[in-house]
Amino acid sequence: MSEETFTGKITIRDVAVRAGVALSSVSRVMSGHPDVSLAMRARVEEAVSTLGYEPDLIAQSLRSGSTRIIGFIIRDISNPLYALVARACEQELQRHGYSMILMNSDANIETESKNFQIMRRRRVDGVIASLVDEGDPSVKKSLISLNAAIVLLDREVKGIHTSAVLTNHYQGVYEATKHLIDAGHTKIGFVTGDENVYTTRNRMRGFKQAFGDIGKEIDESFLALGGFDAEYAFVHTHNLMTSQPRPTALMTGGISSTWGALRALKEIGLKVGEDLAFVALDEWPLFDIFSPEISCVYRDARTIGAESAHMMLQILKSGVQKKLIIETKFTARFSSGGGL
Amino acid sequence: MSEETFTGKITIRDVAVRAGVALSSVSRVMSGHPDVSLAMRARVEEAVSTLGYEPDLIAQSLRSGSTRIIGFIIRDISNPLYALVARACEQELQRHGYSMILMNSDANIETESKNFQIMRRRRVDGVIASLVDEGDPSVKKSLISLNAAIVLLDREVKGIHTSAVLTNHYQGVYEATKHLIDAGHTKIGFVTGDENVYTTRNRMRGFKQAFGDIGKEIDESFLALGGFDAEYAFVHTHNLMTSQPRPTALMTGGISSTWGALRALKEIGLKVGEDLAFVALDEWPLFDIFSPEISCVYRDARTIGAESAHMMLQILKSGVQKKLIIETKFTARFSSGGGL
Repeated sequence: MSEETFTGKITIRDVAVRAGVALSSVSRVMSGHPDVSLAMRARVEEAVSTLGYEPDLIAQSLRSGSTRIIGFIIRDISNPLYALVARACEQELQRHGYSMILMNSDANIETESKNFQIMRRRRVDGVIASLVDEGDPSVKKSLISLNAAIVLLDREVKGIHTSAVLTNHYQGVYEATKHLIDAGHTKIGFVTGDENVYTTRNRMRGFKQAFGDIGKEIDESFLALGGFDAEYAFVHTHNLMTSQPRPTALMTGGISSTWGALRALKEIGLKVGEDLAFVALDEWPLFDIFSPEISCVYRDARTIGAESAHMMLQILKSGVQKKLIIETKFTARFSSGGGL
Repeated sequence: MSEETFTGKITIRDVAVRAGVALSSVSRVMSGHPDVSLAMRARVEEAVSTLGYEPDLIAQSLRSGSTRIIGFIIRDISNPLYALVARACEQELQRHGYSMILMNSDANIETESKNFQIMRRRRVDGVIASLVDEGDPSVKKSLISLNAAIVLLDREVKGIHTSAVLTNHYQGVYEATKHLIDAGHTKIGFVTGDENVYTTRNRMRGFKQAFGDIGKEIDESFLALGGFDAEYAFVHTHNLMTSQPRPTALMTGGISSTWGALRALKEIGLKVGEDLAFVALDEWPLFDIFSPEISCVYRDARTIGAESAHMMLQILKSGVQKKLIIETKFTARFSSGGGL
């Protein structure tokens, strides 16, 4: 600090003069912007190196009003699907000179509110978020008072227009349910999170449509829509599968739900693909390796992550908001046989 | 902004006066510091709410020289072990008023250097990092020029004294290898990352010690120590297990290695626990659910994450650096039988 007082701080202008290029070109190189020629990058980097220039991102933030930080708020980064989304998103943001602050909400609406509050105080340029509960009054408040760009992951909040990357769960769940119905199942259990988020509503729509096709209603007593965590799935799979009558097939929505359900089935002693048919919504990499091989509805987490970053960058650049739909695909494997 | 000019910005002093408490107490409440009484929190929050005070963390950063941001640099957040570490770390940091910027290095030393450079420019208070390669000259430079607190995850860099959370892989791998040797195996393959990181060196020490106990040397031709990624493990497991003579037992270091190796074994048609004995270093939650059940050396990722945060906070508070050792535990399951 004291050194600067005597030597005069090297500024971005000095770098531009030395490199013989425009100020904006130096900015683009320094922020890691991809649209920079190799020759331009080399000239700027030579000048930066010779002068010993070190950009002060904090001071730049104050000048430009932009921190070039994007918040990423999800329930739990240790959910493998979110981790893949986060990785792809972070890499894409960084390629464009943005950094990502990660916060877990832990399925807790108060933690989520606090996360948004901190993001606001940190003056992030935007937040990419998977909300705990779309309907909670605090959510609308959080989104409005954030005063920054927003991209929602698989969420829709009534009365607020935001960009969103949505998954077409409907199609995959419809196909999976039809697959089970075609095999003769009508008693199909469903264990996942609450309908207060788009994910579950969209999945249930596919589930109901497949029953509607054969002129049947779903049996509500086979539904457990109360939590995305493994503990909830464990308890409710246990309850469902030890009651009479019990489902002959089971679907679980989300990786943690699948984990909890499989643990319960193992404890009860019910063999997946033999004593019951089983379909997981969202895939783990190991699903095709272990026995029993698990039938699942797949969505591409990397694409979701990269696209959420692109949509964020588009809002920041041109203010354009949009919704993007990611398709799903049902793959039948050993686990969805049996049970009848 | 223009509003502030006319109304006068509400400052932290106004809040302290209104609440009738010290400035430092307001700071503690606002930063989410845990050592605050409920009564104090209520008084401050009432004053904040009444006055409509909104702390400007960027301006605070410039005043205090502290951004209250910690960088978290890892190879790949989609590795489930790192995701658990990151989650526990983020939650612990946030409890103390710090936010976490996440960056993936993607096993690329240049990306890692760039990550450190950006962390420096962002003036983070510290970085928690799992380095790609301890020995690379750029690493030492990155750590020194960071000019912030450092906690390394399972890494040791020669000539630089930093805090670190290290895992005692030695013990778990020693027990696992002994378990295999006791069953009659001497041809044991080992597929994992390079010895340029503590993790592999420490694991190899346990591996060699178990052979040393019976007066034998390990067979170097059964080692593939070149990468932590699934692709590397896939290719090298394939090579090892289709060569003559082939190992009768196999150990894989890291979750991605395990994934790649299991895929190769499945493709070759070798049954784990029957045609060969198999031990994984690092556990997936599903290891105890699927068949075959996988024997593994376990370490507690949540503890690693929380402790890395504690160590970071300790450096920032009192400058104290230390190393902490996390123990491992070998659990024999079905997969480590067979093969002979």
